[in-house]
Amino acid sequence: QETVCIFGTGDFGRSLGLRLLQAGYRVIFGSRDPGNTALLPEGSRVTSHAEAIKSARVIFVALHRDHYPTLTPLTPALAGKVLVDVSNNLKRGEYPQSNAEHLSRLVPGAAVVKAFNTISAWALQSGALDASRQVLVCGDSAEAKQAVMDIAHSLGLMAQDRGSLRSAGELEDLPLQLLPLWRLPLRIAAALLAFFFIYELVRDVVFAQVTEGKDKSFRIMISLANKIFPVVSLIMLALCYLPGIMAAALQLHNGTKYKRFPDWLDRWMLCRKQLGLVALALAFLHVLYTLVIPIRYFVRYKIAAITISQIRENKTKPFDSTLAWRADSYYSLGILGFGLYVLLGITSLPSVSNSLNWREFRFVQSKLGHMTLLLCTAHTFLFGWDKFLYAATYKWWMPPGYMLALVVPCVVLVPKLILMTPCVDRAVTRIRQGWD
Amino acid sequence: QETVCIFGTGDFGRSLGLRLLQAGYRVIFGSRDPGNTALLPEGSRVTSHAEAIKSARVIFVALHRDHYPTLTPLTPALAGKVLVDVSNNLKRGEYPQSNAEHLSRLVPGAAVVKAFNTISAWALQSGALDASRQVLVCGDSAEAKQAVMDIAHSLGLMAQDRGSLRSAGELEDLPLQLLPLWRLPLRIAAALLAFFFIYELVRDVVFAQVTEGKDKSFRIMISLANKIFPVVSLIMLALCYLPGIMAAALQLHNGTKYKRFPDWLDRWMLCRKQLGLVALALAFLHVLYTLVIPIRYFVRYKIAAITISQIRENKTKPFDSTLAWRADSYYSLGILGFGLYVLLGITSLPSVSNSLNWREFRFVQSKLGHMTLLLCTAHTFLFGWDKFLYAATYKWWMPPGYMLALVVPCVVLVPKLILMTPCVDRAVTRIRQGWD
Amino acid sequence: QETVCIFGTGDFGRSLGLRLLQAGYRVIFGSRDPGNTALLPEGSRVTSHAEAIKSARVIFVALHRDHYPTLTPLTPALAGKVLVDVSNNLKRGEYPQSNAEHLSRLVPGAAVVKAFNTISAWALQSGALDASRQVLVCGDSAEAKQAVMDIAHSLGLMAQDRGSLRSAGELEDLPLQLLPLWRLPLRIAAALLAFFFIYELVRDVVFAQVTEGKDKSFRIMISLANKIFPVVSLIMLALCYLPGIMAAALQLHNGTKYKRFPDWLDRWMLCRKQLGLVALALAFLHVLYTLVIPIRYFVRYKIAAITISQIRENKTKPFDSTLAWRADSYYSLGILGFGLYVLLGITSLPSVSNSLNWREFRFVQSKLGHMTLLLCTAHTFLFGWDKFLYAATYKWWMPPGYMLALVVPCVVLVPKLILMTPCVDRAVTRIRQGWD
Ligand SMILES: Cc1cc2nc3c(=O)[nH]c(=O)nc-3n(C[C@H](O)[C@H](O)[C@H](O)COP(=O)(O)OP(=O)(O)OC[C@H]3O[C@@H](n4cnc5c(N)ncnc54)[C@H](O)[C@@H]3O)c2cc1C
Ligand SMILES: Cc1cc2nc3c(=O)[nH]c(=O)nc-3n(C[C@H](O)[C@H](O)[C@H](O)COP(=O)(O)OP(=O)(O)OC[C@H]3O[C@@H](n4cnc5c(N)ncnc54)[C@H](O)[C@@H]3O)c2cc1C
Ligand SMILES: Cc1cc2nc3c(=O)[nH]c(=O)nc-3n(C[C@H](O)[C@H](O)[C@H](O)COP(=O)(O)OP(=O)(O)OC[C@H]3O[C@@H](n4cnc5c(N)ncnc54)[C@H](O)[C@@H]3O)c2cc1C
Ligand SMILES: NC(=O)c1ccc[n+]([C@@H]2O[C@H](COP(=O)([O-])OP(=O)(O)OC[C@H]3O[C@@H](n4cnc5c(N)ncnc54)[C@H](OP(=O)(O)O)[C@@H]3O)[C@@H](O)[C@H]2O)c1
Ligand SMILES: NC(=O)c1ccc[n+]([C@@H]2O[C@H](COP(=O)([O-])OP(=O)(O)OC[C@H]3O[C@@H](n4cnc5c(N)ncnc54)[C@H](OP(=O)(O)O)[C@@H]3O)[C@@H](O)[C@H]2O)c1
Ligand SMILES: NC(=O)c1ccc[n+]([C@@H]2O[C@H](COP(=O)([O-])OP(=O)(O)OC[C@H]3O[C@@H](n4cnc5c(N)ncnc54)[C@H](OP(=O)(O)O)[C@@H]3O)[C@@H](O)[C@H]2O)c1
Ligand SMILES: CCCCCCCCCCCCCCCC(=O)OC[C@H](COP(=O)(O)O)OC(=O)CCCCCCCCCCCCCCC
Ligand SMILES: CCCCCCCCCCCCCCCC(=O)OC[C@H](COP(=O)(O)O)OC(=O)CCCCCCCCCCCCCCC
Ligand SMILES: CCCCCCCCCCCCCCCC(=O)OC[C@H](COP(=O)(O)O)OC(=O)CCCCCCCCCCCCCCC
Ligand code: HEM
Ligand code: HEM
Ligand code: HEM
Repeated sequence: QETVCIFGTGDFGRSLGLRLLQAGYRVIFGSRDPGNTALLPEGSRVTSHAEAIKSARVIFVALHRDHYPTLTPLTPALAGKVLVDVSNNLKRGEYPQSNAEHLSRLVPGAAVVKAFNTISAWALQSGALDASRQVLVCGDSAEAKQAVMDIAHSLGLMAQDRGSLRSAGELEDLPLQLLPLWRLPLRIAAALLAFFFIYELVRDVVFAQVTEGKDKSFRIMISLANKIFPVVSLIMLALCYLPGIMAAALQLHNGTKYKRFPDWLDRWMLCRKQLGLVALALAFLHVLYTLVIPIRYFVRYKIAAITISQIRENKTKPFDSTLAWRADSYYSLGILGFGLYVLLGITSLPSVSNSLNWREFRFVQSKLGHMTLLLCTAHTFLFGWDKFLYAATYKWWMPPGYMLALVVPCVVLVPKLILMTPCVDRAVTRIRQGWD
Repeated sequence: QETVCIFGTGDFGRSLGLRLLQAGYRVIFGSRDPGNTALLPEGSRVTSHAEAIKSARVIFVALHRDHYPTLTPLTPALAGKVLVDVSNNLKRGEYPQSNAEHLSRLVPGAAVVKAFNTISAWALQSGALDASRQVLVCGDSAEAKQAVMDIAHSLGLMAQDRGSLRSAGELEDLPLQLLPLWRLPLRIAAALLAFFFIYELVRDVVFAQVTEGKDKSFRIMISLANKIFPVVSLIMLALCYLPGIMAAALQLHNGTKYKRFPDWLDRWMLCRKQLGLVALALAFLHVLYTLVIPIRYFVRYKIAAITISQIRENKTKPFDSTLAWRADSYYSLGILGFGLYVLLGITSLPSVSNSLNWREFRFVQSKLGHMTLLLCTAHTFLFGWDKFLYAATYKWWMPPGYMLALVVPCVVLVPKLILMTPCVDRAVTRIRQGWD
Repeated sequence: QETVCIFGTGDFGRSLGLRLLQAGYRVIFGSRDPGNTALLPEGSRVTSHAEAIKSARVIFVALHRDHYPTLTPLTPALAGKVLVDVSNNLKRGEYPQSNAEHLSRLVPGAAVVKAFNTISAWALQSGALDASRQVLVCGDSAEAKQAVMDIAHSLGLMAQDRGSLRSAGELEDLPLQLLPLWRLPLRIAAALLAFFFIYELVRDVVFAQVTEGKDKSFRIMISLANKIFPVVSLIMLALCYLPGIMAAALQLHNGTKYKRFPDWLDRWMLCRKQLGLVALALAFLHVLYTLVIPIRYFVRYKIAAITISQIRENKTKPFDSTLAWRADSYYSLGILGFGLYVLLGITSLPSVSNSLNWREFRFVQSKLGHMTLLLCTAHTFLFGWDKFLYAATYKWWMPPGYMLALVVPCVVLVPKLILMTPCVDRAVTRIRQGWD
């Protein structure tokens, strides 16, 4: 039974202590106030810092960086020990030097290892740690790292070596990130939504106000929302598959795959997953807004008005079989497209994509993904149908939003068709196989 | 190539044997009936128990506890061997002593290790073992445990040391648990549903029966269900965020975070996830019940009746733009709230929450969570609108359900607003940073 | 710091090199063209193949099989080294011998280990490797395997020993599989959908065309789709639970569980998860098709026509309370059934099912699963109600689809009821406990 020492009896220290005890270690806390043992896990001991390090080789420093200077008096006693820095900062770039490097400078004789900072006290305590929560470890002494990784393993955690202490800054940045890959897609979505909102506002509300003097502002909440969400969803879906086309074109042009893509293309390709999921969220909203249509007061009023006018004027429109075909078809395409969309979403859940091999993942994401795009584009085309022929569609010469929305999907689908022809496909495949 | 021995050729023994063989071990079964090799994995050998243990150091005892006494004659031969107890019981607290401790008493010389009991034979055999399926190990001999953990590792499993054999009882209880954290939330949901069911039954059905003599019992299946589900969902959503408020208030009052919360608050905070998911399930039902409204016979009948009466009486109601705004707004708020609700649900999937860091998870669960509550509360407010002004709303002085439902959300949202003011926020943050 | 050598500076070599460098290894590439270092990760060295192997014990061969012959000149220098074969093929069964065995024959002195072929270059590079991505390792030398598994561990990956080099062929097949377990369920679904499509086409469209001369072909897109999807979903849901019944019957008949099931039953039981998920997808489509009903042009037209005719003929149908009860009940049952269906789907996500113990998983999948089947069957029964009494239902003596759909569910539910009676249940339980 090895003894492990923990400096600091705060949230993190206590939670770590509990886990270590469960895993069969002996745990000794070093605290400013060794008398205060109220919240500590049963079975642990508390003494002063100087006392605590005597029997342990590995010492976890569960203090905030501000309190590291309190360790300098212990420098001689800490020589040769393994000091594990678990600390995080509150902001990025708060200090010029990473906490771990700072600690290693304050206590020169000790082997400082950065580890465990990505694990929260809460997760440690509640045991809600899936194995996939990795302990990232870095440090300059291989033995010291090994000692820490061994502890991580016996706590049932995966440990990953991340090189020398110079990487500590990187590890300290990890818990401060806030969804970095989602920024660009969310900004694109926001910009497109804002643009189409103003565009459709002008077409739907302002136009009616100006030309007919009618107040149609109530349309904003649902009718308008149900235009901008699907339109932006469709565009973003197409934006997922556009870089693939561009990459293929570039590779064909270069005749080799051993040439770096331009940086913007690389970055774009890296956030396709997030682009796709944002698009799915918007499509989800489109579907809900659509399904809510028949309970809207406005719609019920309109339908009743039509029925009433038909009776008053005593003429019934005949049943239009073509219209029935077309309306049903575009709903049906939308539903199937949405089904595949959700399937793409499900397979991008980490646990599902992990259980698929590369070929299966590509089959779903690339093949079924293009199929989704095709179905959604066809849905929009059928919805538009012959409207583009009528002048009334172009209010103030502005075409309706869905016509604009169809541009990017077509820019993706047409070249894709060309890339799928056998001869082009063979050329691309050869290049990607590395036969240059 | 190490040899491993397995006692018992049942489901578990066979499945384990198969995996061990795949991982390159030599496997020898000990059986009462060595002749019966029909179902055994190819490459394994079967002999008598006494024979089998000769060449192996580690012996898996894949027998039920009832048959442990058959091992006592082997005690001398088992001295110094590692006996792995994999057994589970059928009920909790069936025996005063855990199976592993019982075994260790029956075979005193052997080093008994409890392990593998949380892994099912089926999972072993089909290889459907995600790495996150951990093998929990406990025992009194460190070497023996290490030997078993090494085997677990080479089967591609994570192993976690859980201390001495005294923990065996705990490990044996794990596979017998039935969703312990879901009990309280499900009971709360059931109680609230029952209360509101009776409440609304009286208001909607009994009241009409008694005062007007009309049979409105058909309303139970959908109209009533679509009142109690959303109302309880909203209350439970608010109950997720109430303990956070209470905790902050307590911490402000105590002036420190180093004071244990009362037990009931701790327990409440631990089941917030489950509370939230039950609330999501109820909201999901509310949405489906709502979307089904326009295809209901009753609704179609009512709408037709209104149209018909409008024609007969030859007066058409004018279009009410305010009503259109209000109705559309409350649908829209409901849809957005539900979207965020689903997002909260998705991020609580283990594989998703594991890929988020603490800050990201808090952003989604706490920030977007409160936003969800706000949207859903606003949705309900707008639905109610001015109804609370009319006496007809209070049948038998009973206010409608949604008014009652609004109490808890307001109790959460108003203090939350206060906690968000800069000065209070700073005080709370200081306390949580540990500056006491 | 150990040195690792990589042959080949392609996608895989580079990505692996990057990870190794991050984990603190020294990396040296062997390349045909040591001058070309443009895309290589910073910190690595490139030399000729002969030079590169000098300082390393483990050599990753990141070349395609076709280029293995270029290694034969190095045979003497490679003696005693560990050669890691990471290669995949493009098709299954392309070569009689696995790549790794081929390599081991070409370079006789080296210890060849097959590993890492299931990990994609992309995953290595982007670090999007969940711990559950396992490195499967096989080879004839235990030490060599250990060396490779150690490397995998320090990259933060799980490694699983899969025995001798004879298993290499199996490992090479893994990345070439395309959803093998989904084939049978998808084929069953396709066959049933085709059958019911033709069946309902005859009943709905051809019959109307022939007997009344009406063109009802527009019904195909939604009305017909919304018959075949739910019908097939219900049948497939029942097919999930049929093998369980059969297994119990067989075990009762045999009086023991130690008898292998017939092969077809085993295979059927193995793909129940996929059967269920396909059924869920179809139910999902049924729900969307149903919710879209009230915005269909055809439906709106029909409803308006009914209202108009009621006014013209000046007779209003009275409100039918029984019909309201029945319609609302079958919607309600459908919604609850669908809710449980989705719950079954959620618990079959790998990360969720991993966090459930065996008893909990069985409770959801088996208990709630049968409940789902019961609710969906009751939904269909109530939908049909008394229609089977009327001759008009049997067009050309063909009963409607949902009647056929009810056969399999009843074949499951009735025996299930019998199996649940205490005496039969006790017998089955005894057998499954192993008391034969
Ligand atoms: C709801 C939804 C969810 C999504 N989830 C994900 C997700 O989880 N993960 C994800 O990645 N995407 C996701 N996406 C985005 C998209 O579906 C995928 O990125 C999809 O694989 C793109 O297909 P593709 O055919 O355009 O690109 P790919 O098939 O990936 O190929 C793109 C280009 O990359 C280059 N390339 C690929 N492999 C190589 C190689 N070996 N050598 C050199 N170049 C190569 C080629 O130039 C190729 O043209 C999602 C989309 C949606 C709508
Ligand atoms: C659909 C749905 C899914 C949900 N899934 C989850 C889930 O997966 N997991 C989950 O936990 N919840 C889940 N919830 C519940 C809820 O969203 C979260 O618990 C949420 O984080 C609560 O936010 P909060 O701001 O009230 O609490 P928090 O931000 O967690 O804070 C609550 C209180 O805890 C105390 N506290 C927190 N940190 C510290 C600290 N370091 N030191 C001392 N005290 C501290 C504070 O007093 C604080 O006021 C879910 C809810 C819903 C509706
Ligand atoms: C949406 C959806 C998702 C699904 N997801 C999954 C999934 O993720 N995983 C999955 O497996 N299924 C899944 N299914 C299928 C189905 O729900 C389950 O297989 C379910 O457990 C079957 O229940 P059962 O009672 O028929 O079978 P079980 O309870 O599994 O028993 C079936 C038969 O197997 C035999 N058996 C079981 N245990 C033993 C034993 N110890 N010894 C000997 N024989 C034994 C018995 O003869 C028993 O009758 C899913 C279904 C749906 C609709
Ligand atoms: N909480 C988490 O989830 C988490 C996750 C990862 C990393 N971390 C890191 O772990 C470290 C500790 O975090 P924590 O949440 O446990 O903090 P905490 O609860 O505030 O505890 C800090 C401990 O430091 C000691 N301390 C306080 N003031 C001191 C002073 N002036 N001089 C010397 N020691 C002092 C105290 O221990 P004594 O009273 O015993 O001396 C106190 O318990 C931090 O670096 C944090 O970044 C925390
Ligand atoms: N099945 C699982 O999923 C699972 C999961 C975790 C743990 N476990 C545990 O593993 C153990 C075995 O489970 P199992 O499912 O394999 O049970 P099982 O199929 O019933 O097998 C038990 C074995 O015990 C032997 N046995 C039976 N009667 C005996 C007797 N009177 N005296 C001596 N030996 C007898 C038999 O082997 P021989 O005929 O060869 O002697 C039999 O194959 C149990 O303790 C169980 O709790 C099982
Ligand atoms: N890419 C993946 O995701 C992945 C995943 C798992 C396994 N693998 C396996 O890893 C291996 C390499 O794949 P890769 O994608 O990296 O392929 P690649 O990009 O085509 O690279 C192959 C490398 O082989 C070398 N090479 C090419 N022609 C050669 C020749 N005529 N003679 C000798 N060497 C030659 C080249 O390296 P130099 O120019 O430096 O000599 C080239 O970079 C394959 O066996 C593949 O199956 C790949
Ligand atoms: C065109 C129709 C599409 C309709 C989509 C509906 C969703 C159900 C389909 C599930 C398909 C899963 C494919 C997984 C790929 C794979 O091979 O995945 C492989 C893995 C393999 O796991 P194993 O390793 O355990 O075998 O399987 C899974 O992960 C199963 C995932 C199940 C996901 C169900 C999630 C349900 C969530 C509910 C969403 C719908 C709600 C709708 C409300 C209105
Ligand atoms: C307000 C709109 C909300 C609408 C919600 C719709 C759902 C889609 C949005 C997905 C958002 C995922 C956020 C994940 C957070 C994160 O950073 O997560 C981070 C992880 C990162 O994974 P990596 O580590 O691989 O990068 O990403 C994910 O896990 C992706 C999860 C995808 C989930 C899709 C599930 C779809 C299921 C279908 C549900 C809807 C069905 C509706 C039927 C009617
Ligand atoms: C009859 C009503 C059913 C309605 C179903 C609605 C879905 C929400 C219910 C979630 C229930 C989860 C049970 C998990 C079992 C368990 O114990 O699971 C146990 C695990 C335990 O995790 P821990 O180990 O972290 O405690 O919990 C989970 O995994 C939580 C899973 C959350 C899943 C939410 C997914 C939401 C996706 C959205 C689908 C709906 C979209 C609809 C759009 C129209
Ligand atoms: C359940 C599935 C779906 C249904 C029932 C459906 C239905 C509809 C309906 C009724 C409209 C007309 C809205 C209006 O009158 O303003 C519409 C428009 C549209 N839909 Fe869908 N849809 C579905 C899925 C999708 C999906 C997945 C996409 C892809 C992004 C999509 C893209 C569009 C677009 C771009 C429009 C045109 C919006 C406009 O400018 O008016 N739809 N859809
Ligand atoms: C798609 C999203 C939503 C839509 C379309 C929607 C729609 C509706 C409708 C039409 C009603 C009136 C029902 C009636 O007439 O009886 C209603 C009521 C209500 N909704 Fe929602 N809603 C949605 C989401 C939510 C969510 C997420 C909540 C949060 C829990 C919620 C809470 C409520 C409450 C409490 C009521 C009052 C119930 C009553 O007493 O009648 N809704 N909603
Ligand atoms: C939200 C939940 C559900 C709703 C609102 C719903 C509603 C309906 C409706 C309105 C119909 C009549 C369709 C028509 O007139 O052609 C129907 C039929 C049917 N439903 Fe559902 N349903 C739901 C869920 C389910 C589920 C989960 C199943 C199970 C597989 C199912 C199985 C069936 C079957 C077999 C039919 C008969 C189809 C036919 O031959 O016409 N339903 N459902």
